[in-house]
Amino acid sequence: MALKLYGFVPSNATFRALVSLYEKDLDVEFVKVHMADREHKTPQFLSRNPFGQVPVLEDGDITIFESRAITQYVARAYADKGTDLMMNDPKKMAIQSVWMEVEAHQFNLPSHKLVIELYINVLHRGREADEALLAEFEPKLESVLDVYEKRLTESKYLGGDSFTLADLHHLPNVHYLMMTKVKKLFDARPHVSAWAADILSRPAWVKIVSMLRSEGFV
Amino acid sequence: MALKLYGFVPSNATFRALVSLYEKDLDVEFVKVHMADREHKTPQFLSRNPFGQVPVLEDGDITIFESRAITQYVARAYADKGTDLMMNDPKKMAIQSVWMEVEAHQFNLPSHKLVIELYINVLHRGREADEALLAEFEPKLESVLDVYEKRLTESKYLGGDSFTLADLHHLPNVHYLMMTKVKKLFDARPHVSAWAADILSRPAWVKIVSMLRSEGFV
Repeated sequence: MALKLYGFVPSNATFRALVSLYEKDLDVEFVKVHMADREHKTPQFLSRNPFGQVPVLEDGDITIFESRAITQYVARAYADKGTDLMMNDPKKMAIQSVWMEVEAHQFNLPSHKLVIELYINVLHRGREADEALLAEFEPKLESVLDVYEKRLTESKYLGGDSFTLADLHHLPNVHYLMMTKVKKLFDARPHVSAWAADILSRPAWVKIVSMLRSEGFV
Repeated sequence: MALKLYGFVPSNATFRALVSLYEKDLDVEFVKVHMADREHKTPQFLSRNPFGQVPVLEDGDITIFESRAITQYVARAYADKGTDLMMNDPKKMAIQSVWMEVEAHQFNLPSHKLVIELYINVLHRGREADEALLAEFEPKLESVLDVYEKRLTESKYLGGDSFTLADLHHLPNVHYLMMTKVKKLFDARPHVSAWAADILSRPAWVKIVSMLRSEGFV
């Protein structure tokens, strides 16, 4: 049975899940959920994800929600296809897992807040920037990027010597941040900057960017 | 070499990591980090965790930080000891993984905010409750618990039919919330209430409670 991903453009979480499927060279049917019509709050959609959020992956008889659970499922269930997204050695996997948690609990919050403010509210909606929000979250992102700069002198990617989910999970936020003034925080850190350029140029992500562009989002 | 966990009492994250070690019946040396003396920001501690946070686990030559990375490491590295904390079947593991992500991205934020406000600020420090904060996060926690109530009619535990990391990761927050007025949100939902009582009565958690009590925290 074909893989089906329910998502919304330009949802960060949707593209986090979709890029993992593309890294695995999997054919996937992308089903747009019409958030404006509140389709994600219909009983039918809530039966797929009781939180009424995108993305949701259906693979035969299995239904998975939460973007990072989808990527982990894809990485494990299709281990023999496309890019290896998990370290095989248990000690290396433990280190990869640390950096996956760092993305979720250190990087994601300030990045997500800055993407909503600078990309959605300022660039797309033409609003004035909320300076108090920037004053709170820019320094938080900066201190995370300082740790990344040091980490990336030790290994080429965050999770280890090869590209894994620890890097992939950052993609949507990094993509949007690079289109805002926060790009300067990346540019000021040579290893972070090279890492960002590297992961953003991966064919799977370039495919996502074409999709975003065709929807008027880049 | 002995396992060493660097932590702080009553840090939620510290006890999330420690209870996984207790579930595995592992001997662990608990090393108290003196946060009041800013020991977590010393170069020595930052070499263990560049974010300067507890907990950190040292197991021989491997150093792991981020509480949920520690629990996953413990569950995998000591798979043959104590309680099985991960589902073995890949499809069951995928579902467990969904509920681990739900804890991290749906349950944790409102719970953590309410624990800080109601347990630390009100109960411990004797401050007035911040009603605006409660008005924001109580309904958020409620809607998460509504989803849990339904989920727990389908399986005894969040991750499936047995206790796993998907439940364990909730323990510290659930413990503290049950000592505040937010307990009523649990009491109003019979399956959630039974689940909370079940996981809080596990010997590994009871051992943590004794430790908290000896430090004046329960």
